[in-house]
Amino acid sequence: MTRPIGVFDSGVGGLTVVRAVRASLPGEDIMYLGDTARLPYGSKSPETVARYSLTCARFLAQHDVKLLLIACNTASAHALPVLRSTFPIPVLGAVEPGARTAKAATRSGHIGVIGTLGTIRSGAYTTALHALDAGIAITGQACPLLVPLAEEGWTDDDVAYAIAVRYLRDLAAQDPAIDTIVLGCTHYPLLAPVLARAARTIFAQPVTLVDSATAMAAAARETLAARGELVAGEGGKLRCCVTDASRLDELAPRFLGEPLHGFDAVDLGI
Amino acid sequence: MTRPIGVFDSGVGGLTVVRAVRASLPGEDIMYLGDTARLPYGSKSPETVARYSLTCARFLAQHDVKLLLIACNTASAHALPVLRSTFPIPVLGAVEPGARTAKAATRSGHIGVIGTLGTIRSGAYTTALHALDAGIAITGQACPLLVPLAEEGWTDDDVAYAIAVRYLRDLAAQDPAIDTIVLGCTHYPLLAPVLARAARTIFAQPVTLVDSATAMAAAARETLAARGELVAGEGGKLRCCVTDASRLDELAPRFLGEPLHGFDAVDLGI
Repeated sequence: MTRPIGVFDSGVGGLTVVRAVRASLPGEDIMYLGDTARLPYGSKSPETVARYSLTCARFLAQHDVKLLLIACNTASAHALPVLRSTFPIPVLGAVEPGARTAKAATRSGHIGVIGTLGTIRSGAYTTALHALDAGIAITGQACPLLVPLAEEGWTDDDVAYAIAVRYLRDLAAQDPAIDTIVLGCTHYPLLAPVLARAARTIFAQPVTLVDSATAMAAAARETLAARGELVAGEGGKLRCCVTDASRLDELAPRFLGEPLHGFDAVDLGI
Repeated sequence: MTRPIGVFDSGVGGLTVVRAVRASLPGEDIMYLGDTARLPYGSKSPETVARYSLTCARFLAQHDVKLLLIACNTASAHALPVLRSTFPIPVLGAVEPGARTAKAATRSGHIGVIGTLGTIRSGAYTTALHALDAGIAITGQACPLLVPLAEEGWTDDDVAYAIAVRYLRDLAAQDPAIDTIVLGCTHYPLLAPVLARAARTIFAQPVTLVDSATAMAAAARETLAARGELVAGEGGKLRCCVTDASRLDELAPRFLGEPLHGFDAVDLGI
């Protein structure tokens, strides 16, 4: 294994980021850590999420990763500065790439952000978007039911639609001019079809859904290219580690988009 | 404070047990621990849940509790034997009291159990019910969306009803003769009205919903009386500890049924 790219997430949702990185950088080895023993991060306090993120990043740093991707939006919102100051490797979060994509997509300048309670309460997307353009109107909506819904596999049925409508209606009530919605959680791409369907019912104008995974992969490519650390070619290997193996066989392929060839259950002393 | 009763849960759901214990034993002091930094337990492996339960029980034992109640059904399913063998105080789980109540309630001898994935996969209710009566037919149904639904506060609306119907229909498809359903998770009493409404639509016969909280309180009273450790009177104090304080002010009163007068955020070294 060459020096891998390290990716961590609270669970398996971050495999949507791995999927995008593998599509964009097929020669790179990737080491993934899903903190499945302590998930979710989205409902927990900033201090707890920062502490958990540090143990995850330390594990990956010990495995000599050359770049660290925080796939989890909540961890990105609460732990990016502390991880950047702690580790001597480049660290990329989910929020800035997602914000850049949303800024490029909006025509009305009205952007909605959906995510976990932790991500929305942090205001991280508002900060990142206003750093790009102080004139953008940003509205956040926490959607706690979407992660368990995606994990249950009810991604495009009547229950999923009813939940999507409920949350997007709350968003539209706050700002009906929204034309771009950031999917601010790694699980949400699985719900993109039903969210798009709900958005068509609720908003008068067409709405673009933006997810961070592709933008993160592009940012990873840029960062490695600038450092002369890009591995060309194909055949990069994926090593997947989790802190609790429950349901991994069932859930991982949905997010990764390919079969998972084994995983390691690791003990972070938690 | 006299020696308190110790109660722990993965989060705030166990406050439904505290509520029942306070109603039944109003003179008793109670020390509660919600492991909110590591919740939920219901989707995690038996090994992880047993390890977490041990750290929770150790914390309460250090505070000299005279009786330990495992409010969490998943922790009861995975950790009751190890806690009983580790600590020199009586330990009561949620499963046996709930099973006894269900056995007393059923007329058809066909019982359904709804709970987390971990509780259902453990077969703990089947074991406990068959120990009471080997002839009872038991059908389990994991309902992963019910906990986040109760926490979102969507307890009796169209989304809650659609989800309840989906799960109970799966249960009825396996055994249409069910006349008693065990609410095998501390969160589910909040959803009892919508579950009852869904059950009336789906089952031909009347269905009794059974929860463990009242049965646990009765078992706690029996145990303390047998040991001569019952505190009479009223005015028992409640001390509530959590490992992560996020959302506690908002969630706790719903489960406790009374205002929460402060709480302590404790560090279990996790």
